[in-house]
Amino acid sequence: MNGKVYIIGAGATKIGEHWDKSLRDLAVEALFAAVKDASIDKRDVEALYVSNMMSGELQGQEHLGALIATWAGIPGVAACKVEGACACGGVAIHQAYLAVASGLYDCVAVVGVEKMTDVIPSDVTAALATAEDQDYVVFTGTSFVGLNALIYRFYLEKYRVKQEDIARFAVHCHKMAVSNPYAQFRRPVSLEDVMSSPVIADPIRLLECAPVGDGAAALILCNERFLKENPRDDLIEISGTAVATDIVSMHERRDPLAASALRRALDIAMEKAGIETKEIDVLEVHDAFTILGILPLELMGYAPPGEGWRLVAEGQVEPGGKIPTNTMGGLKARGHPVGGTGVYQVLDIVTQLRGKAGSNQVEDAEIGLAQNFGGVASTVAVNILKRVR
Amino acid sequence: MNGKVYIIGAGATKIGEHWDKSLRDLAVEALFAAVKDASIDKRDVEALYVSNMMSGELQGQEHLGALIATWAGIPGVAACKVEGACACGGVAIHQAYLAVASGLYDCVAVVGVEKMTDVIPSDVTAALATAEDQDYVVFTGTSFVGLNALIYRFYLEKYRVKQEDIARFAVHCHKMAVSNPYAQFRRPVSLEDVMSSPVIADPIRLLECAPVGDGAAALILCNERFLKENPRDDLIEISGTAVATDIVSMHERRDPLAASALRRALDIAMEKAGIETKEIDVLEVHDAFTILGILPLELMGYAPPGEGWRLVAEGQVEPGGKIPTNTMGGLKARGHPVGGTGVYQVLDIVTQLRGKAGSNQVEDAEIGLAQNFGGVASTVAVNILKRVR
Repeated sequence: MNGKVYIIGAGATKIGEHWDKSLRDLAVEALFAAVKDASIDKRDVEALYVSNMMSGELQGQEHLGALIATWAGIPGVAACKVEGACACGGVAIHQAYLAVASGLYDCVAVVGVEKMTDVIPSDVTAALATAEDQDYVVFTGTSFVGLNALIYRFYLEKYRVKQEDIARFAVHCHKMAVSNPYAQFRRPVSLEDVMSSPVIADPIRLLECAPVGDGAAALILCNERFLKENPRDDLIEISGTAVATDIVSMHERRDPLAASALRRALDIAMEKAGIETKEIDVLEVHDAFTILGILPLELMGYAPPGEGWRLVAEGQVEPGGKIPTNTMGGLKARGHPVGGTGVYQVLDIVTQLRGKAGSNQVEDAEIGLAQNFGGVASTVAVNILKRVR
Repeated sequence: MNGKVYIIGAGATKIGEHWDKSLRDLAVEALFAAVKDASIDKRDVEALYVSNMMSGELQGQEHLGALIATWAGIPGVAACKVEGACACGGVAIHQAYLAVASGLYDCVAVVGVEKMTDVIPSDVTAALATAEDQDYVVFTGTSFVGLNALIYRFYLEKYRVKQEDIARFAVHCHKMAVSNPYAQFRRPVSLEDVMSSPVIADPIRLLECAPVGDGAAALILCNERFLKENPRDDLIEISGTAVATDIVSMHERRDPLAASALRRALDIAMEKAGIETKEIDVLEVHDAFTILGILPLELMGYAPPGEGWRLVAEGQVEPGGKIPTNTMGGLKARGHPVGGTGVYQVLDIVTQLRGKAGSNQVEDAEIGLAQNFGGVASTVAVNILKRVR
């Protein structure tokens, strides 16, 4: 390895329905915020990784690398789009890490962006379903909420857990998002609100689903050579990073709850970072649906299988608890603009490691881990951040 | 840098109208051919880069990383799709290079694939146009043949060159493709054939355009650590690699013929490889239209501006000439399955450096350079290969 890779800047747009902003507007706004946060000149950026899943389907626009570079006023830079379904943000950070670690680039930017409004709503569901196998699964008419409903139902039956206990994860996320200026939903919800919201795909209820939204988040990564020219003392290192895949469709896996790609990515990234689970101060999980907020807590060993819900019920996922999770609102309440999500997750950890999380601050947070899922955890990216002082 | 990066395997499907094969079939066929060529086990592959532009638009299928990994029987590997319009093949090779050079991966695969038949033909033109700016250019109704026609006409007027002299590049490519088993068109055409073919967008004639086709090509890249375990003596090094962008839309550039992204990518890659233009034994240019076959020859200094056509007329682009170019048929006759193209280009150079080009062999070819364009050269990838014995 060519030494270490650092995050020196992070920026984002608020997530929401930005009827007045196009995809490129959002991307450039986030990129400039990250450049400003890093106190660099935008011309310092040598390569641009654009994380996006659905611009082809929703905006009829590919070639986001050159397009965003142009609109940011930095044509010339190396640029491309990285796609790995909803995991593309975490995957793009992994690619940016490799670019810097290779020694070929000293300073690179990642911009994760998705524009999901200003299109026909049914198109969004269809575009999201392009993450699943069109020839063998999607033709049956299922969607991702349907597939996750199968996981959810299977879990409830296997462990004899009440839905309320899983659904409470949404209550947690909304509570955390109240103080997050980027969050799509800055209001608390009660468990009763969640359980009385409409059923979308049995058993999943509306308030258990991450929302549709527009947004962009950006990061600036660099190596030690760049730091020598641009010294600073608030350093955050990417101490571990991994991407793993699983059999793309769930019905072909031996155990639909195993999340083997998560296991594999965790093992690789944590070994590289040289950390154990207990050392993680703050965690970001990919709670596109509440059940996906609970499962990783069990797979990581914070609770026995079937008992992850207890961590939520006991407040152990809040700052000050055993494993502070989605402390800025997660996909559920911070929002889930697909291409942006994995980048927002890492931005949220950066906020914590910098001690800038306000009322949601995890005291003396030093190590954070983000999990980003694509498809039914068919692609998983894990990025581990460490504060360096 | 972490030492060197080598290509140890290359494989491909024939390019054509594969009505009986799906996108995944083509990708896996090419991947397995490359794995076999490398004499490795497919389980040696640690990461998979899928180069593709239009699967979202044409197949309604994203998430090709996990999908192709699954169908190749190697789920688990890190995988993603890389998109940079028609340059995605060259860009994906660049990313794969970075992955190996970073030290995080010892052996990675690149698969470039596009499936352009089995869809409505008008959809292909629209999908290709997603490489241009939808909001400010494509809404005018133009397409890539239209944009390249502007470049072509401007060139003809500026240099007072006859169209026949440019169109002759297609004759050259068809001649070269006759002996290429992967080529879409293995038949010669005459200059009269080209000049009497229908006008598509004035002045571009049908036989000056690269065809629509299906195909996939794959490469296996590795580092020296992997080679120690898997020794071989037919080594090809990626001695230089670069990606650069230009202002995405041509009408905003000062000079539509400047191809500044090509200049930039060439400068970076050639400096890294430590070579000068005269050392290049075999060249691949991105001749989506004949004019794009001529321009790079001038920009690289093989001929003065406005006189690149002489190299073709004099046979200097053939094996044995000054700069053997597109010796396996180029985009025009080998074919242009978009996501595959940049990978086919490098495969063709591998064939030459291995001395396996048969009747098209460039004697003692040691160094080859491939140029892959996206949009109107808005993204350009340059990869330089060197034979190591």
